[in-house]
Parts: sequence; structure tokens; C-alpha cells
Amino acid sequence: MTNKLTIPDTDNPPSAGVEDYKLAMRRVVSPVAVVTSANGSRQNGLTAITICSAATEPPTMVVSINRAEDTLQLINQSKSFAVNFLSEEQSDIARAFSAREIGEENHLQIGSWTSLTTGAPVLRDAVSSFDCVLEHSIPYGTHQLLLGRTVAVVSQEVSALLYRDGFFRRITSE
Amino acid sequence: MTNKLTIPDTDNPPSAGVEDYKLAMRRVVSPVAVVTSANGSRQNGLTAITICSAATEPPTMVVSINRAEDTLQLINQSKSFAVNFLSEEQSDIARAFSAREIGEENHLQIGSWTSLTTGAPVLRDAVSSFDCVLEHSIPYGTHQLLLGRTVAVVSQEVSALLYRDGFFRRITSE
Repeated sequence: MTNKLTIPDTDNPPSAGVEDYKLAMRRVVSPVAVVTSANGSRQNGLTAITICSAATEPPTMVVSINRAEDTLQLINQSKSFAVNFLSEEQSDIARAFSAREIGEENHLQIGSWTSLTTGAPVLRDAVSSFDCVLEHSIPYGTHQLLLGRTVAVVSQEVSALLYRDGFFRRITSE
Repeated sequence: MTNKLTIPDTDNPPSAGVEDYKLAMRRVVSPVAVVTSANGSRQNGLTAITICSAATEPPTMVVSINRAEDTLQLINQSKSFAVNFLSEEQSDIARAFSAREIGEENHLQIGSWTSLTTGAPVLRDAVSSFDCVLEHSIPYGTHQLLLGRTVAVVSQEVSALLYRDGFFRRITSE
């Protein structure tokens, strides 16, 4: 469950500047997801764009979360989380979960929620939701890398919400 | 450099079906990148959508690559790779690098290429290119997770190429 990855000696060669890196990432278009977890009566979530598929067998998602996030504590306690990729109708939910000033008890007041296998909140009408058992939680620099084996999945034919350079976007066919 | 993550016992609870997982991932909109590497006179690359930011300090990308890919051998040998997120003008490059029947010597005939710090091929006119030193290469199921510390980065204001459900897509503002 716990693995230790060494943080590199960044002098050889030196790392790119953090601001240059962030600018280059902002220019990449990303799908928007809300990552949720529940432990007993507590539940919380956050908006994230740092999610991708890690493997197909076993079906596994990798999520990177800043270690200051409260939701990360819930994930480490419950050993589970859900990744909910938002539809273009759900930008209000993306905004609610990225507003840190809102108390956790109010986050899940917006949207319609259910659960599948693990108990992590799963958003109805999302593009895709992946209910995951936490298999590995790996600290790395500012972030924690979470490897979640998918134990239940739902998806539907709705248009996805996207994020680029500070704005939510929609898609068109080529 | 080498880390071993245990593959979970998938019976407790059982994993979601691979086809259901793939369908749910296909419905997610993803940015499209070509991941490249070079070792001496050999160079190759592949089109990938399984890439995200792993940390900002140090600036680090995580890339998941199927272990059967030839490019993975080059990455393991050279200990470096580049991630080139494609612009909407570069769908021909995405197609070229996802066509396995094309020999590696022909892949980089399409597009205009340069290099930054590591020597991995960097595509001119891409949205963003991240030149990375391989810090960790972690086998996981069908795939290899690569953690690459970014040592050079270039980006520009061009529209991104996207992929969903078998088709390349473009973006519009909300």
C-alpha cells in the first residue's frame, strides 16, 4: 500500500521553472472531474484535471492530488474514491468543488448523488464515473499519486466539460 | 529508479469489466499527445491520451504506456522522453504515430522536429512540449507508469487537438 519514490536531485539537469510548467499545462485542454470520497458520515470532494488511465487490466485510474486537500485524508482513511467526469451541463458543480471557501458539508448539496460499490459519492448524469479501491498512495513532491482499481463504472452519451487556461469549454466534432 | 507496486487481488471486490472500463474511458474527452524518445540514432514515438501532471514541484508528468510499445524500450534505455500535446492542425501526426504498421524510421518524417535538453524529439508548433528525465518506471498490470521530471518546456497559444470515442475533436469556448 505504501511505496516510497525518491524525489530526484533537481540539479542534474535542473528542472524547468514551475511557472513555465504551469503555463504549459494551462494550455493543454483537460477533461474536468470531481474526485470524491466518504468515510462514515463524512464526505467531500474536489475538482481535478490531473487524472488519467493507468492500466486496463486491472482497470486502474491514476489521480494526482495536492497533499493539502482535505479529500485526500478521506481517501486515505476509507481506501476508496470515485472519479466523476463532468458533462457540459455540470460546470456549476465544477465551480462548487473548486471553491475552497465552501464548507465540505455544502459541497454535495449541488448535483444528484448516489453510490456504487465503495460508498464514495457518484454523480448522476456525469459522462463517466469510476468507483475505485485505493491500491497505492504514493507521495511525490507537492502531490500524492493515487492508484485506484476500478470496481464499478457507469457512463453515458453526454457531452463532456473541458477546461483550458482558466475557462470551461465545450467540444465540437472535427 | 525501479519500484515494484503489487498488483491487487482482484477478487475483493472484483474489478469492473475491462470492456465497461474502456467504454467509460472512450467517452471521456482527452488531449492528444505524441510521446517520443531517442537513443543514439534510434528514435520513435506513439500517440497517447493517458498522460497527466503528477506534481508541480518538482514539475513532473505521469505517462502510462502499454508494455508492448517499442518506444518504451527507447525510454528505458535513454532515461528520457518528451510529451508533445498536439494542436488541432496536427491530427495527421496523431494518425501517423498511432499507425503501428508504419516503420519507426518513417514516423518522424511527418511534422517538424527539434530537441531541447534530453535529445528526445520535440514537435515544433505543438500546444505544449515537456522534455522529461525519467525518474521512475513502474510496471503496473498491462502498462508501465513513467514519472518524468520536466527539464525543459515550450508552449504556445494554439488550439488543442482532442480525442473522444474514436474521433479527433476541436474545442469551442463556453
